[in-house]
Amino acid sequence: MTIALDAMGGDAAPGMVIRGASIARERYPEVDFLIFGRESEIGPHLDKLADLKAVSTVVHTDDMVSSEDKPSVALRAGRGSSMRLAINSVREGKADGVVSAGNTGALMAMAKFVLKTLPGVDRPAIAAFFPTLRGETLMLDLGANVVCDGRNLVDFAVMGNAFARCVVGVLQPTYGLLNVGSEEMKGHEALQEASAVLREANLPGHFVGFVEGDDIAKGSVDVVITDGFTGNIALKTAEGTASLISEYMRRTFKSSLLAGLGYLLARSAMRKLRKRLDPRRYNGAIFLGLNGITVKSHGGTDALGFANAIGVAIDMKKYGIVEKTRADFANLTQPSPKAQAVNG
Amino acid sequence: MTIALDAMGGDAAPGMVIRGASIARERYPEVDFLIFGRESEIGPHLDKLADLKAVSTVVHTDDMVSSEDKPSVALRAGRGSSMRLAINSVREGKADGVVSAGNTGALMAMAKFVLKTLPGVDRPAIAAFFPTLRGETLMLDLGANVVCDGRNLVDFAVMGNAFARCVVGVLQPTYGLLNVGSEEMKGHEALQEASAVLREANLPGHFVGFVEGDDIAKGSVDVVITDGFTGNIALKTAEGTASLISEYMRRTFKSSLLAGLGYLLARSAMRKLRKRLDPRRYNGAIFLGLNGITVKSHGGTDALGFANAIGVAIDMKKYGIVEKTRADFANLTQPSPKAQAVNG
Repeated sequence: MTIALDAMGGDAAPGMVIRGASIARERYPEVDFLIFGRESEIGPHLDKLADLKAVSTVVHTDDMVSSEDKPSVALRAGRGSSMRLAINSVREGKADGVVSAGNTGALMAMAKFVLKTLPGVDRPAIAAFFPTLRGETLMLDLGANVVCDGRNLVDFAVMGNAFARCVVGVLQPTYGLLNVGSEEMKGHEALQEASAVLREANLPGHFVGFVEGDDIAKGSVDVVITDGFTGNIALKTAEGTASLISEYMRRTFKSSLLAGLGYLLARSAMRKLRKRLDPRRYNGAIFLGLNGITVKSHGGTDALGFANAIGVAIDMKKYGIVEKTRADFANLTQPSPKAQAVNG
Repeated sequence: MTIALDAMGGDAAPGMVIRGASIARERYPEVDFLIFGRESEIGPHLDKLADLKAVSTVVHTDDMVSSEDKPSVALRAGRGSSMRLAINSVREGKADGVVSAGNTGALMAMAKFVLKTLPGVDRPAIAAFFPTLRGETLMLDLGANVVCDGRNLVDFAVMGNAFARCVVGVLQPTYGLLNVGSEEMKGHEALQEASAVLREANLPGHFVGFVEGDDIAKGSVDVVITDGFTGNIALKTAEGTASLISEYMRRTFKSSLLAGLGYLLARSAMRKLRKRLDPRRYNGAIFLGLNGITVKSHGGTDALGFANAIGVAIDMKKYGIVEKTRADFANLTQPSPKAQAVNG
């Protein structure tokens, strides 16, 4: 198996990328790497890691996508960038998946343009894991598609379901549509349409209907389906709330001598807690619905986080996510959502 | 000043409502109460509270709205309910505001039907306070309107702005539209339209443009404007995240003897923290845009929480929220959002 790496994406690139590849190399000795970027910057890091160097091929390019580039600009002007060449290598069959810690919008635009979506998929989605009371929950879309119709939401359900089954290993995943209430008639038209289709669709697992905002953290379902606007707001609201509570904790512990002593004793426990809530633990974002494997690592991640993102790409290949998702779409009894909503 | 109370709404009604009124009576000796509900159930509580009884008039009705009633059913069948009669008393000028801990949807439907919206307001909204890193932030709408156009969002901005100025006391409130990015071109059409109008509108304070999900907990602005779908998801996601972290904390502290000792010392600090994040502290939900004052107390609240909700209604009357909001709408330079978006 060969994984393509965009060595120039991420705050601490390319050193973080190379060290991350080295950690992944130890975990997955069967994997080779195709590393795209500036040879003069990559070389010194690679020279220190003989084991990694032995299984890596560096493809030099001076160009790179910056984190400020708009997706449309990156798509037009970044044809020689490390990100684009890494994605190209997947399309050309030289690599089995690509991992980048660079500009999310540019990566999605390029991956969609180069790899295309799977047959039956209108739009790819960004998925990620959320920590919950009972393990982890996958949620998508987290921002690739601001406006979604019922058909898009059904697609996301198929994609998320396939991922939960084949990569997470939940044989019969539960999944639900994020809404403002669990009653059947709640929410806007796209949700009603998607719900009507999913109730009739022959997807594996169990469609529970609508779930609410607090069901994300409760872990009420394995997969939460939503449009990219709502998903992005929910993700950032959850992150903001976690930061707020952590700051409140800090202030509360500093509020008295006794609380301060408690803090000293509780510090390592709190560190564990922070680690548990660290978004980097969840390996950044997974692009689903594409005809090829693309993983977006957090831009501010360290080598360990990047190695985790590589691990996700390897698992996606190993468990055949692209083929499974393609098969699910082929098997799906999917009438036009509008027709279904009217008939159903 | 007279406040109308729906004595039959809330998990612990009517005892909680009467005890809450008694606390409010001590805080606001100038206020009288009109109490609607079952006299035989209200009387025994009131008999124990001579000071409150002296300023209260009980209006008997056997009917009440249940927490399971659909708004449409409550509107049709609940014409003799304690909730409906309490709202009627505001329209008839017998009370200056109404407080209920009952069914939110029914309360909104009845208040809108009986009191009507202010001139220029298409739809009322539900607002509430969120705890943040720098005080509190008002967010609306939290669920009254699942689908909103640009015009609705502009209305919410005017309503939230007036509330922040006259009740919260922020002379120049900052306010922003909740979106998936702060750049001008981000988000869907309604956000673009509302942003175009608000940039040109002569509202007091400062329109900062778009804010993101994590800006809620950061307290980046005094007022966050969003549609009821997104607001409801954000509210419940924040509540779910807070519960999750609190449960993680509990488990973490139980994970070792040392951490357990830290927990004992930190327990009172943690209790303070929980209190700070307790939604009841924020007095439930404020209905804005109506031609009359309506406050929805949390259904599970206790007497102290209900007294806080009464306090909000009293403040809204004292500071003339209805008149201020009416004046702001009259002064607003508000072309059609569509025309503005095209010209702007």
